[in-house]
Amino acid sequence: MQPLYIVKIGGNIIDDTGKLEHFLQDFAHIVGSKILIHGGGKIATEISKSLGIQPQLIDGRRITDADSLKVVTMVYAGLINKNIVAQLQAAQCNAIGLTGADANLIPAKKRQVGAIDYGFVGDIEAAKVNASILESFLDAGLTPIVAPITHDNAGNLLNTNADTIASTLAVALANHYEVRLIYCFEKKGVLRDVNNEESLIPKISPDTYQELRGNGVIAQGMIPKMDNALQALQEGVKAVYITHADDVLTITNQQKPAGTVLHL
Amino acid sequence: MQPLYIVKIGGNIIDDTGKLEHFLQDFAHIVGSKILIHGGGKIATEISKSLGIQPQLIDGRRITDADSLKVVTMVYAGLINKNIVAQLQAAQCNAIGLTGADANLIPAKKRQVGAIDYGFVGDIEAAKVNASILESFLDAGLTPIVAPITHDNAGNLLNTNADTIASTLAVALANHYEVRLIYCFEKKGVLRDVNNEESLIPKISPDTYQELRGNGVIAQGMIPKMDNALQALQEGVKAVYITHADDVLTITNQQKPAGTVLHL
Repeated sequence: MQPLYIVKIGGNIIDDTGKLEHFLQDFAHIVGSKILIHGGGKIATEISKSLGIQPQLIDGRRITDADSLKVVTMVYAGLINKNIVAQLQAAQCNAIGLTGADANLIPAKKRQVGAIDYGFVGDIEAAKVNASILESFLDAGLTPIVAPITHDNAGNLLNTNADTIASTLAVALANHYEVRLIYCFEKKGVLRDVNNEESLIPKISPDTYQELRGNGVIAQGMIPKMDNALQALQEGVKAVYITHADDVLTITNQQKPAGTVLHL
Repeated sequence: MQPLYIVKIGGNIIDDTGKLEHFLQDFAHIVGSKILIHGGGKIATEISKSLGIQPQLIDGRRITDADSLKVVTMVYAGLINKNIVAQLQAAQCNAIGLTGADANLIPAKKRQVGAIDYGFVGDIEAAKVNASILESFLDAGLTPIVAPITHDNAGNLLNTNADTIASTLAVALANHYEVRLIYCFEKKGVLRDVNNEESLIPKISPDTYQELRGNGVIAQGMIPKMDNALQALQEGVKAVYITHADDVLTITNQQKPAGTVLHL
């Protein structure tokens, strides 16, 4: 099977023009088929504030009311996505920006209201992901750039976690490609001590994950990312990396490990 | 050759949620291949004001400074484009939202500074329009929804006139399709008296256009639209209509004329 790199970049890279430019130059140089999934970052929060919309967070998760949905649609699908596309085009990478609504790529359901009403937040219907259209884009030499917005097939856009989009697309394409999923952020990888870049954990298996979670080394926002990543490995994704944005070409072009490698 | 309808909707329809929904229901029911190009409307102006960005206009044309470019990218490529896509998906139309940067669809040049510096405004490089990728999308059953943003292949997005995008794409696809170009707006068509809907001019040729322009019936914003449209006919587009948004299915599915028909 042909290799495919699915790369996710987080908000800390998107928020820094210089870091983003540097990353996109590297991304453009990944040899072979690739997909980029981007998050949002602080820009949505800043635009919200400028528009007088107060962002609501519960347990660190953004509540997406109708006004907030407008903002994330503008910022994620418009401002961030299209600027990434234009920069990649300048770097000779034939990028195409997409949300989960485009070509019915990622159908989702509005999250059911439980203890918390998250608002217009989408939980992906993984079985309905339109992998074949992504394959046809990749076959045509296009590089999909996916914004973290999905839709419910009833006319509503839904704010959706970018990490989950990345792992879901990785699984959906694992039947036809040798998929490597790379989560890029501003640290070297999963660290034993978050303040010490030398404390990188080079490998994590499901067993060591339970141990690291048990003793609190892996906590909070890293937990859903790790759960997604290990699930992706179990569902046929070849490898998952959590690494610094600067190290993406080490993994893809030099084919060496970098950051934290997750394995079964 | 296979028929293809290229439909452009203006700001007055986009600004009115009810009108837009009604139009999109009709558009979804157009039989066969179709492309939608949308403008912007008042939403960009309103968002600009809310963000404290004062829109600049010279001779009724928006000057696109860096801040305004951010706003139109957010509003045209994000908010408007993705909401149209989601609504069409709900109506069983497999829409895909695109700007001219996506898949390098519409390369443009930043308009040269003359008497007026229009800022980040793009003049399309018609010879470089990527018609083949649009054809492959249409062949795959996708319906492209194009926002009026292009790019300069050097990393810059550019604000671009939606009427011109529509006629340029019509010409670019005229070699492979029997293209009909339909400009939809809130009036019945080109009117002799703009305040009298009964004064519709049913047909316009290059000769009658010169006459109507000479006596001031066709003036201002209608002139570039007409120039584009007649040029498109000369370059192989089968027919051009300027008509009310409610009449689009009359032309496409009933194959009857509606509004003003332009002919050579």
